[in-house]
Amino acid sequence: MANYRMTIQYDGTRYSGWQSQHATDATIQGKLETVLTRMTGQQVDVIGSGRTDAGVHAIGQVANFHLKQPRNTGELLDGLNRYLPEDIAVSSLTEVDERFHSRYQAVCKTYRYRIHTGEVPDVFARRYVYDYRIPLDVERMREAAGLLLGEHDFKSFCGNTRMKKSTVRTLYEIRVEEHESEIDLFFTGNGFLQNMVRILTGTLIEVGDGRREPGSMTDVLARRDRQAAGYTAPALGLALLSVEYEGDGQNTMEQA
Amino acid sequence: MANYRMTIQYDGTRYSGWQSQHATDATIQGKLETVLTRMTGQQVDVIGSGRTDAGVHAIGQVANFHLKQPRNTGELLDGLNRYLPEDIAVSSLTEVDERFHSRYQAVCKTYRYRIHTGEVPDVFARRYVYDYRIPLDVERMREAAGLLLGEHDFKSFCGNTRMKKSTVRTLYEIRVEEHESEIDLFFTGNGFLQNMVRILTGTLIEVGDGRREPGSMTDVLARRDRQAAGYTAPALGLALLSVEYEGDGQNTMEQA
Repeated sequence: MANYRMTIQYDGTRYSGWQSQHATDATIQGKLETVLTRMTGQQVDVIGSGRTDAGVHAIGQVANFHLKQPRNTGELLDGLNRYLPEDIAVSSLTEVDERFHSRYQAVCKTYRYRIHTGEVPDVFARRYVYDYRIPLDVERMREAAGLLLGEHDFKSFCGNTRMKKSTVRTLYEIRVEEHESEIDLFFTGNGFLQNMVRILTGTLIEVGDGRREPGSMTDVLARRDRQAAGYTAPALGLALLSVEYEGDGQNTMEQA
Repeated sequence: MANYRMTIQYDGTRYSGWQSQHATDATIQGKLETVLTRMTGQQVDVIGSGRTDAGVHAIGQVANFHLKQPRNTGELLDGLNRYLPEDIAVSSLTEVDERFHSRYQAVCKTYRYRIHTGEVPDVFARRYVYDYRIPLDVERMREAAGLLLGEHDFKSFCGNTRMKKSTVRTLYEIRVEEHESEIDLFFTGNGFLQNMVRILTGTLIEVGDGRREPGSMTDVLARRDRQAAGYTAPALGLALLSVEYEGDGQNTMEQA
């Protein structure tokens, strides 16, 4: 058994997400499995680091898959990029330890949410940016973001209100970057609940435009109630930027 | 009569170009005229700085139009961006001297052509970048570009082989920028013939990948024959960046 790890970028616009309950839906995982199965002649299961919602993009999604016989990684990479639809691409592919599991071993993920605040829309980024067009006070957003950092029960920020498992997660960083006509939010944490980044974003937007006070975040967390948090920002502004694994940094240093 | 100048950006993917001989085609000019006519209740004719081909994009196309009665420019701008399709946007709109004509008074235009040379496609730029995937020697391209600068008869680089008018134009600059997995070509000149930037690009690509010698450009120009130049690079990589007018710089300085 050979185990392969790949980094994947996709424009999620026309997909039902990374994975779907409905087998007939167009999913990223499904497209990858179809191409790999056709290329190798064996049923290939692709394991993603986690699901992304319908319409959410990725620049650095990570997944792994097993093959009975080892194959040349360059040929696998070229074949994937030749046969995948033009809105999915594999940016790297390497053979890894048989025990590597992209979901169980992920230690940290970073998402980016892009908000367009300028009056003139950006036609080239329109599929990747939430067109909000209302000025947001980034200092208020940063103050609110600070109260959300650390280990908390994020039940108020969970889109699945019947979630049975633990809703405790750790947010390491929320960075608020302001550009000319765009505000980008970067969220880094050890894991994210369903819709969590989009609900965090919607809540921070409500702080930024004055509908909520930055200081109210402590109460929103304490309530453990989806109704306490803000709205779910639309999927199109969100992208999974990167997934990190234990030892990744060390490997990089060994190579250097 | 009031005269308005606007700067327009568009994703040309689904259009037959700025303007078309066939009245039924979807064109950028047609969309602007439809919205302005509906907003003002009068038949509005939009005059562009020049045509762009089907599939070509613009970041800074310039056009002007006349209205019988002056209107508030902020309201015109907001209305346009509200009613235009999401792949066309007006980034600025100002009232100008009645004599301003966006085509006759343009003194200089800059186009950009984006070539993706990396092995991994960029899924987010795929509608705006020519996916060439073969390494190009930018030094050879720069050497060839240098021979094309200045005033020349560019008949070899004109897509309309039955062009009756003068094919003499002046190229002020061709800049070749190399990024990680992309080469961008910037062309600045006093005017461009039909398909000229795309034929210049195709020819420079043939120099970059070794099919032509940089020194052959002098001969290609002298031949005055479309067959002497290279192929027409696809429309999707091309964007009209900016159009300059006499006095534009002075106005900017006066404002500063």
